[in-house]
Amino acid sequence: MADPFAARFAAARARYGPLVLGADPHGPLLRAWGLTDDAGGLERFTDIVLAAATGTVGLIKPQSAFYERHGWPGIRALTRLVEDTREAGILVVLDVKRGDVGSTNDAYARAYLGDGAPIEADAVTVHPYLGLAAMGSFVDRADQAGACLLVVIRSTNPEGRAVQAAVERQLLDEIGKLNATLAPGGIGPVGAVIGPAPIDPPLDLAAASALFLAPGVGAQGATPDDVARTFAACPERVMPSASRSLLAAGPDVNALRDAAATLNQRLRALL
Amino acid sequence: MADPFAARFAAARARYGPLVLGADPHGPLLRAWGLTDDAGGLERFTDIVLAAATGTVGLIKPQSAFYERHGWPGIRALTRLVEDTREAGILVVLDVKRGDVGSTNDAYARAYLGDGAPIEADAVTVHPYLGLAAMGSFVDRADQAGACLLVVIRSTNPEGRAVQAAVERQLLDEIGKLNATLAPGGIGPVGAVIGPAPIDPPLDLAAASALFLAPGVGAQGATPDDVARTFAACPERVMPSASRSLLAAGPDVNALRDAAATLNQRLRALL
Repeated sequence: MADPFAARFAAARARYGPLVLGADPHGPLLRAWGLTDDAGGLERFTDIVLAAATGTVGLIKPQSAFYERHGWPGIRALTRLVEDTREAGILVVLDVKRGDVGSTNDAYARAYLGDGAPIEADAVTVHPYLGLAAMGSFVDRADQAGACLLVVIRSTNPEGRAVQAAVERQLLDEIGKLNATLAPGGIGPVGAVIGPAPIDPPLDLAAASALFLAPGVGAQGATPDDVARTFAACPERVMPSASRSLLAAGPDVNALRDAAATLNQRLRALL
Repeated sequence: MADPFAARFAAARARYGPLVLGADPHGPLLRAWGLTDDAGGLERFTDIVLAAATGTVGLIKPQSAFYERHGWPGIRALTRLVEDTREAGILVVLDVKRGDVGSTNDAYARAYLGDGAPIEADAVTVHPYLGLAAMGSFVDRADQAGACLLVVIRSTNPEGRAVQAAVERQLLDEIGKLNATLAPGGIGPVGAVIGPAPIDPPLDLAAASALFLAPGVGAQGATPDDVARTFAACPERVMPSASRSLLAAGPDVNALRDAAATLNQRLRALL
């Protein structure tokens, strides 16, 4: 059995820094890189990102939407990205934001977590609109596989406040209770996605005994200092993710590697 | 350009009845049907469901999770199901419950809505946890393609109440405003997923100028009478969906067809 995700993240962080490199091949990016906006372009994108990431970052986060828009050949490219990334010793945070009723969540969990999953990730994002209590299969499979379930609690976009403000505190509290049962005294397998911007009212992040994915550093406006401020109570538990701001340095592998290494060092110094 | 989805649903309803046949090939079902639980089994499942559905129901709803659990070959099977279903003149409600920030939603919308989408559906489900206001691309593409966006507002599972109770009324109100702008005086392209069970407080469904997907008739406990009671204010706008309770009649095509036809007649009489 794999070590718990929290231990694997801690090791990756110690070695490279906490940065998660977002692998988001949107159309304008592929064209700017001189690639075709199709499944073949996704495969070339993967090669470039992996060459730059290996030895530079400990985690890669592909956003499923950018692969789904090319249908099953896009998902085939995503599958290869996930497999080659893990083979290179890099943790994969698969950003799919799935979530449904319990029996459907069981099927999703089998798709993305644990041995035998066709796309086996180290961590996967989910949304809680149909309730955290319906996520039993996700939680169980993540726990058994040494993986991490990342529940969107407070997203980076301002439009999310309309729903999230009313429920985020209670959901984070539920995560803390789950982790207290699954990993007493430690960091549990249920994490949260929290935008790296201090918003009132502040959330009691440390009490959740959880890891946090903090997306959108750079292009979405958040700085490394914002990350440090938002997660000041538990800086060693945050996984800051940057996509567009780093990918803009490509397609040159060395330039992309340098951009990621520089940001990783900056985050390591602050967190 | 295709007619608006509301007009296409009204025509399908007049011809066959309002029933949506859920195409949910979960593992136990495939085994009960004597099929292998792999992409090949999904292809055979598709053949049987389509043979029974053609001439019997006006809408089919595949749940993406059951295809995703077989990776890209599963998505290839889903793609063929969607294409063949539409070719047979049956509307496809693709149950994917996607939802993210605006730029990612744009990629998802391109994956599932409108000309050129690799899996082009007539309607697609989304979840609003990151905000309805971030759904601009989904709404625009659905509107332009004569498709329908179905936002999960009140799900069938009790675990969903924890999040939904606080926000469902406001979200349904937003849907009503969108539809009033996009289809003044008519039924707009933004619909809602509403569990077919009367829950207090009741929602003002008629005011949303929307179609409603009412999932889980049968196996999840709701009866046709529950559907009629829940949507009494606008019975002609509800699309009741049944999956497991009907699929249990298979794999015999005639038995499956009879089960669907019987339920469709019962729903037609009540709604």
